Amino acid sequence: MNILLNNRIVPRESFILDIEDRGFQFGDGIYEVIRIYDGVFFEWEAHLERLVRSAKELMLPLPAAINTLHQNLQQLVKDSKITDGSVYIQVTRGTAPRFHAFPENTEATLVAYVREMQRPLEQMRSGIKVVTAEDIRWLRVDIKSLNLLGNVLAKQKAVERGGAEAILIRNGIVTEGSSSNLFAIKGKQCFTHPANHLILNGITRQVVLRLLNNTDLTLQETSFTLDELLEMDEVFITNTGLEVCPVIQIDDLVIGNGTPGIYTHQLQSAFEALLGSVIPS
Amino acid sequence: MNILLNNRIVPRESFILDIEDRGFQFGDGIYEVIRIYDGVFFEWEAHLERLVRSAKELMLPLPAAINTLHQNLQQLVKDSKITDGSVYIQVTRGTAPRFHAFPENTEATLVAYVREMQRPLEQMRSGIKVVTAEDIRWLRVDIKSLNLLGNVLAKQKAVERGGAEAILIRNGIVTEGSSSNLFAIKGKQCFTHPANHLILNGITRQVVLRLLNNTDLTLQETSFTLDELLEMDEVFITNTGLEVCPVIQIDDLVIGNGTPGIYTHQLQSAFEALLGSVIPS
Repeated sequence: MNILLNNRIVPRESFILDIEDRGFQFGDGIYEVIRIYDGVFFEWEAHLERLVRSAKELMLPLPAAINTLHQNLQQLVKDSKITDGSVYIQVTRGTAPRFHAFPENTEATLVAYVREMQRPLEQMRSGIKVVTAEDIRWLRVDIKSLNLLGNVLAKQKAVERGGAEAILIRNGIVTEGSSSNLFAIKGKQCFTHPANHLILNGITRQVVLRLLNNTDLTLQETSFTLDELLEMDEVFITNTGLEVCPVIQIDDLVIGNGTPGIYTHQLQSAFEALLGSVIPS
Repeated sequence: MNILLNNRIVPRESFILDIEDRGFQFGDGIYEVIRIYDGVFFEWEAHLERLVRSAKELMLPLPAAINTLHQNLQQLVKDSKITDGSVYIQVTRGTAPRFHAFPENTEATLVAYVREMQRPLEQMRSGIKVVTAEDIRWLRVDIKSLNLLGNVLAKQKAVERGGAEAILIRNGIVTEGSSSNLFAIKGKQCFTHPANHLILNGITRQVVLRLLNNTDLTLQETSFTLDELLEMDEVFITNTGLEVCPVIQIDDLVIGNGTPGIYTHQLQSAFEALLGSVIPS
């Protein structure tokens, strides 16, 4: 398998990293995961824009390779023969003698690879069970950084308890999933945490916000408590892999009647229609 | 230069890392920095004990190479011809297809390298200026993990403002420095934040706690506010490189009379005496 290393496509096995790469020692870097449907990069511009924003927030100068990224990734995907999958892109601040503050005159390192991925149709159809976990992450999770231990520990807790995702609670407030955003519906109102420093503003989340305009739901981008969440009619999560995925149980409590809700289904259909419109048939 | 890779000493340039190493993608790993004085590893047992604790808290199975670590590091240091420096040890959870939860059957990767280091005598003698920064890190900084972006951004702020260190403030409470612990003295009382989930319990911090027993200071391991800090007679920070280092200015405010305090000097002398007792003359 090949990977992209800055501007060069090289064998995965030849990826030599210096032990003092700041991504490796400090998690000092950013990333994106972009879905590929039938060879097409879904929401490419939105992902690139977020990568640029993450870099800016961390004062991380993007490498020149960013200018040829799209072209190189298309070549990487073409070579891989993968038509349905995802591309993972990571940029770290580069290599320098270990010291916390930013190094000078260091070139950032960009790496990317492709992997195959199927749509999780069964989970999307039947819905998933999730567990709650305390949100112990840092206060800049709006930056898509490599500091992911809080997410890792929460997801691990979910897996150990038979859940597909962990829903994070900070001071009683529902923020998001460990690798997803969360939406909840009560009556004709659709709630989701505002896109501030306490959540990662998912690209699929942004797509769903647009899709909501074509429903009779009213968006409430506001914070809500776990107690309020458990009283909602419908709950679903969104991310690049799961798209729009119904949540039918939170810890021991069944949501609604324990099956995916009507609005969730409507949004799934709208998402499906969107895919149909951007992917060549 | 050579590095230690699990049980093998290999050329630094030959360190091949898989792009899906969890240290690289999630910061899913732990580390230690151990001071070497005249060829002797200072507080080796305490560092090893803390590495084991960090691993346990992250449920990270240490690799078999941990058993021969001391011996291998001694060889690495001997080969390097470095007598005064530090050894950096890092353990990551290993390589697996990217998914937040822990992978199964993955062997952790241990890497280590040595670098030269001089005692920062001028800073230790004259004291340093520090700046304050908001403590935005996650809520398990007691684990010496690779998720260090909060520390990195704070240190960068310090450097930009001409400070040698950033002192972190969480909800008005002084926690610690971005890569150091903080002590403050008022009258005959010596204050430092308790070693809970909000600080990294430094090895030099632990040494200083022992040295306090031979002074007429009373230890107050309790939290205090920034306002209280600015009223202290003496302030100093501790870490592996700076040992015991006086703080003479915080932001625009001079501490005491702007020179290192008497008790700080006394603790520096006690630390010096301890070094003299463990290092062969």
